[in-house]
Amino acid sequence: MKKNFRVGLIGYRFMGRAHSNAWRQAPRFFKLKAGIELHTLCGRDAAGVEAARAPLGWQNATTDWRDIVESPLIDIVDIATPTFAHAEMAIAAARCGKHVLCEKPLGLDLKQCEAMVAAVKKAGVVHMVCHNYRRIPAIALAKRMLDEGALGRIFHFRARYAQDRLADPEFPLDWRLQKETSGSGVHSDIQSHLIDLARYLVGEFTEVCGLVNTFVPRRPLASALARGVRKMGKVTAPDSALFIGRMKNGALANLEATRYAPGRKNQITLEINGRKGSLCFDFEDMNRLQYYNAEDPGDRRGFRSILVTERDGIQPYVGNWWPPGHGLGYEHTFIHTFADFVNACAEGRPVHPTFEDGLKNQRVLTAVEESSQNGRWVSLT
Amino acid sequence: MKKNFRVGLIGYRFMGRAHSNAWRQAPRFFKLKAGIELHTLCGRDAAGVEAARAPLGWQNATTDWRDIVESPLIDIVDIATPTFAHAEMAIAAARCGKHVLCEKPLGLDLKQCEAMVAAVKKAGVVHMVCHNYRRIPAIALAKRMLDEGALGRIFHFRARYAQDRLADPEFPLDWRLQKETSGSGVHSDIQSHLIDLARYLVGEFTEVCGLVNTFVPRRPLASALARGVRKMGKVTAPDSALFIGRMKNGALANLEATRYAPGRKNQITLEINGRKGSLCFDFEDMNRLQYYNAEDPGDRRGFRSILVTERDGIQPYVGNWWPPGHGLGYEHTFIHTFADFVNACAEGRPVHPTFEDGLKNQRVLTAVEESSQNGRWVSLT
Amino acid sequence: MKKNFRVGLIGYRFMGRAHSNAWRQAPRFFKLKAGIELHTLCGRDAAGVEAARAPLGWQNATTDWRDIVESPLIDIVDIATPTFAHAEMAIAAARCGKHVLCEKPLGLDLKQCEAMVAAVKKAGVVHMVCHNYRRIPAIALAKRMLDEGALGRIFHFRARYAQDRLADPEFPLDWRLQKETSGSGVHSDIQSHLIDLARYLVGEFTEVCGLVNTFVPRRPLASALARGVRKMGKVTAPDSALFIGRMKNGALANLEATRYAPGRKNQITLEINGRKGSLCFDFEDMNRLQYYNAEDPGDRRGFRSILVTERDGIQPYVGNWWPPGHGLGYEHTFIHTFADFVNACAEGRPVHPTFEDGLKNQRVLTAVEESSQNGRWVSLT
Amino acid sequence: MKKNFRVGLIGYRFMGRAHSNAWRQAPRFFKLKAGIELHTLCGRDAAGVEAARAPLGWQNATTDWRDIVESPLIDIVDIATPTFAHAEMAIAAARCGKHVLCEKPLGLDLKQCEAMVAAVKKAGVVHMVCHNYRRIPAIALAKRMLDEGALGRIFHFRARYAQDRLADPEFPLDWRLQKETSGSGVHSDIQSHLIDLARYLVGEFTEVCGLVNTFVPRRPLASALARGVRKMGKVTAPDSALFIGRMKNGALANLEATRYAPGRKNQITLEINGRKGSLCFDFEDMNRLQYYNAEDPGDRRGFRSILVTERDGIQPYVGNWWPPGHGLGYEHTFIHTFADFVNACAEGRPVHPTFEDGLKNQRVLTAVEESSQNGRWVSLT
Repeated sequence: MKKNFRVGLIGYRFMGRAHSNAWRQAPRFFKLKAGIELHTLCGRDAAGVEAARAPLGWQNATTDWRDIVESPLIDIVDIATPTFAHAEMAIAAARCGKHVLCEKPLGLDLKQCEAMVAAVKKAGVVHMVCHNYRRIPAIALAKRMLDEGALGRIFHFRARYAQDRLADPEFPLDWRLQKETSGSGVHSDIQSHLIDLARYLVGEFTEVCGLVNTFVPRRPLASALARGVRKMGKVTAPDSALFIGRMKNGALANLEATRYAPGRKNQITLEINGRKGSLCFDFEDMNRLQYYNAEDPGDRRGFRSILVTERDGIQPYVGNWWPPGHGLGYEHTFIHTFADFVNACAEGRPVHPTFEDGLKNQRVLTAVEESSQNGRWVSLT
Repeated sequence: MKKNFRVGLIGYRFMGRAHSNAWRQAPRFFKLKAGIELHTLCGRDAAGVEAARAPLGWQNATTDWRDIVESPLIDIVDIATPTFAHAEMAIAAARCGKHVLCEKPLGLDLKQCEAMVAAVKKAGVVHMVCHNYRRIPAIALAKRMLDEGALGRIFHFRARYAQDRLADPEFPLDWRLQKETSGSGVHSDIQSHLIDLARYLVGEFTEVCGLVNTFVPRRPLASALARGVRKMGKVTAPDSALFIGRMKNGALANLEATRYAPGRKNQITLEINGRKGSLCFDFEDMNRLQYYNAEDPGDRRGFRSILVTERDGIQPYVGNWWPPGHGLGYEHTFIHTFADFVNACAEGRPVHPTFEDGLKNQRVLTAVEESSQNGRWVSLT
Repeated sequence: MKKNFRVGLIGYRFMGRAHSNAWRQAPRFFKLKAGIELHTLCGRDAAGVEAARAPLGWQNATTDWRDIVESPLIDIVDIATPTFAHAEMAIAAARCGKHVLCEKPLGLDLKQCEAMVAAVKKAGVVHMVCHNYRRIPAIALAKRMLDEGALGRIFHFRARYAQDRLADPEFPLDWRLQKETSGSGVHSDIQSHLIDLARYLVGEFTEVCGLVNTFVPRRPLASALARGVRKMGKVTAPDSALFIGRMKNGALANLEATRYAPGRKNQITLEINGRKGSLCFDFEDMNRLQYYNAEDPGDRRGFRSILVTERDGIQPYVGNWWPPGHGLGYEHTFIHTFADFVNACAEGRPVHPTFEDGLKNQRVLTAVEESSQNGRWVSLT
Repeated sequence: MKKNFRVGLIGYRFMGRAHSNAWRQAPRFFKLKAGIELHTLCGRDAAGVEAARAPLGWQNATTDWRDIVESPLIDIVDIATPTFAHAEMAIAAARCGKHVLCEKPLGLDLKQCEAMVAAVKKAGVVHMVCHNYRRIPAIALAKRMLDEGALGRIFHFRARYAQDRLADPEFPLDWRLQKETSGSGVHSDIQSHLIDLARYLVGEFTEVCGLVNTFVPRRPLASALARGVRKMGKVTAPDSALFIGRMKNGALANLEATRYAPGRKNQITLEINGRKGSLCFDFEDMNRLQYYNAEDPGDRRGFRSILVTERDGIQPYVGNWWPPGHGLGYEHTFIHTFADFVNACAEGRPVHPTFEDGLKNQRVLTAVEESSQNGRWVSLT
């Protein structure tokens, strides 16, 4: 008989909504190897979590995450909280034998990440970091093409994650701009996605050099604004970061993360250049992958704008949805991620990106910060 | 106490899946004025409909649509069948006092559409044709801008609905290519969407002249292929159609529908030109609206690529979803449509596009066909 | 010894400038089979033409076009005047044994065009209509691909020529909006380019149905404005026109020409769909050709954005200019046209588009006007 | 009476052709403050330079550049040779009192550049480095907008110069890949353009950190291939380079130059983000400037695709050419540059970018190289 997984989700705001939707939708569109039950939703605010419970589709609500982690009824713990809470929760969940899905970045720092990896390995549970962008169909297709050698030797990996909300100095200071809650601000929050894509698509970094930066050092505190008070606070985490690097396969890397790019709402742009071709992607046009095949006939070479919406297994994931040309949206990246995670749990096998990936990611994040502090290249080998 | 609507859905394939998803998701993302219960799913094939029932989220299944239409438990009948069945079902549903949501085109011909309008009006139920593209956020934004007069006097409405699956002469002959099941093939199936958008955004047609065409007159029968047999059948409905026209406000119209455009998967392109600016849209890039404001300063005028993903009521519908830059997909158009329909049912008021809209649409479709037959312009006034 | 052609150009404003530039530049970038001498420039205003003479590179100036046509020193007559003057000049030039290059459209009406064709044929001179867009490198590449059968059976030809200057009702009434000087206004002026491209790329029309239209019936007279007086005059020629048609090879055609499309400055968009692929072009991005190859592998099909700037004979014309990626502009289309014309003159052979092409073009223009007047389809066979 | 400048041009290959064209065309399309005479063309190969002379429009040819520099007949010396020859020629020209226009980069190294600056200052001649991309109309418009404060405080300058010819390891080793002739290979050759645009548009760099790199260390020698022999040689200059930096106004910079990006033919992409908006540019679509105005109404904000082809002084340079929508090409950037240079010579005033700009550019180039060697940030203040 098919197994049924009972899920407990910690966090019910932006990420909590996206995760809840994915838990609900994954079994509707993918033939999963186990059933899913949205068992318990956890949040610190009793009224808030209870108000969210039914609309998000959960059977129970709690304000104490240990209720989830320790419950014998729960099989999967899904952590969608601010970063600072990940380590404690994930380690406790692993110790209780739960499979763990954890939002990115894995932890606040290397030490936390290492402890998290150790915990899940010791427990033998399935673990995954929620770098949902790996499972954009266009990115999964790019990965397949790279694995097939469609680009040959890789020369360049170039990526930028650009948003614009911090360009306004009145945008409030929330947990994402504080070191103790976010780790390294925008660097941890969105640069980590680029690092994950670089590692997934092209490979490991061997050395990096970069800078983490804060354009606006003081902002109105979000916590005060919630009480109707304007009170300025110090931004203690980077609000922008960029770095260059060398990768194991000889490629040069160039990554940048910022929330100071007016007009870029959630733009993740990638370009990968290899001996035999190039690939480009822009998340604001997420149903497309650009592909240049240098081996096309000389008079008719050009970047192909591949609409990644084909049916029936031709391209990854999309065949489970609608006919060609009927595009997907942001939320689908989570549904694909969760479907793969559930299948891995059902079969007790690893699923990328694992907590080890999260740790390796943190090593790159940390190396860039160290580089920024010391003004020099930092080796990762 | 908030009302709860029990829904019965007839049809469980492509449209049935999209509708089921919309019924499930609408109450999760929109504060509806009534609850939704996915009560009964209907399909002709007993095994098929039962297999679809749970994955699509329905409580019950039946093979007889009258079970839905006549059930005192059902409040809303949603018709997602091939066109030929719409009229009988909708009329029966109206007679039983159900609110009716019907897939497009409304009916096979003018006579059916007129009977359907008469039935819903007599019954006093809420009625809507599922022209889901009206509620693409970019289209809803365009409508708002047009209503505000952002474009001034309108000169041109230009639209094309282009797909490519029929370019392959081996693509099977299904109900969509037969007159008795589809009405007018591609003309009814996808041209009707363009006509709906033209009427919604710019207004009524006063005269039209066009052609309906069949490029490939014989194809392998889908019904035979399903039994593993290749047997050719006659295509009895148009597989492409185009027309020009004049609109009540003086604008010129140019509409085209085809499934013979390789590379166009589900491309719906619109351009509207007015005295003060232009609007453009492409469904393959559905989260964007292009807007040219002729009143911008002379040296910095250009089409604005508006990413229609802003939060909190700035743009229609999208604020209920994710943060800016996190785009939506095809299925969301249904969710928006169904949310508006449910609210209209709860308040007992009309919701566009009504069955009258469906009838007016059919008048244009029919006029184009008549024009094609007679080789001359046909008046619609 | 290499022949030297002495050229006389009639007209020195917009087209006169573009033609002069082409005469100067063609021998600099193309190895022509004859030399070029910019002998005499003609214009009706003595001061104007003399002021233009040296900057445009001409040896002599005159106010009487017969000085050019009848001069024994002149080999080539280039007519860049308003349309109404073409026939008389071209016929006189042919009678005097000059090779004739004539701006489009060939004449005011069928009668003029027929007389022009008769004259050049009787004289045995080389004749060409200046439909310069045939020699945009991207269009020439499209032609080559179509000739090679890259698209297979053609289903659709779709084109639009869109500008925006007439959207302003204060834009003055010049010769282009008057029947007696322009023939058929925007229809003759820019629709003729689309007809030429349709015929060049896809083939002949067999029947057409369309409308010619005037959005703004009265405008300030340009001639009065030149004297500082605002005086309204009647627009006697169409300011917009659209038509649909059937082509000899079975393709459906859809053409539209307007100057009422804010934001479209000189946009010529084409799409051709065939069994095996599609081609698209936009003159506002003239160095690119979009090509969809339906025979590319299923998971990586997409419109290729071909940058038509390759070197050394890989793509038409561009190898004579700059390295790959260094694009061309509007004026280059004339240079390519004139280079081909000079070579044809040197070898005494026809060069497309000939005056016969101009006449066939006029037949389509006329048929559309007739169709507009009678409200029905007009056959061209 | 209007002055007449006699020009001597050294170099007749790619740059020589582009410069000759600009000298010929500038007076045709711009009302210059002096006349231009294409007096003498110089090249080392006697047959080659004589064959090029007439087609390129020059009166005389010579194989000794001193004939030009020392001739009392010559007013302007235009240096379009490989980099290694610039300094000697420019210094000699200045000493002889000639105005000097010199291809980029100014010299091989700081020492050369400093001597060149000293020479032109001492001589009091007009001097300019041919960074032609400053005078792309879209870039000139961007500059005007930045000067007007349209973007407010600048956060990011991001640029990439990407080509693809070196991705093929068989592409020959020419002077551009050798240290002694090129200075710093791709870094000098094309990165210098980005540095110039950064300095022009946003301001000075205060510190940089980067790497210069060689992907393919040995290639067939061009000189041997010219003799039909395949002989490998060592690449002694970088074939790719990237760096990050801080600018005086607080902006972060990210620049990259490569010839290993298949599909990028001559792509120069820029993005500038400021408090009030963003600007983007792509040379492969050179007639457009993308502009996001954060102060547009909230529901209709988006990047404007400004077609920089307006008439009559609305946008820089383009009014001298064709009507709106009739785009320009690569060669026009030189024509604009030379027109400005001639006017400056006529008025005896400086014209940007001066040799001082070339020197400051070299300081950045050198700092990046030093940074690459030492693995750390290098200050430029």
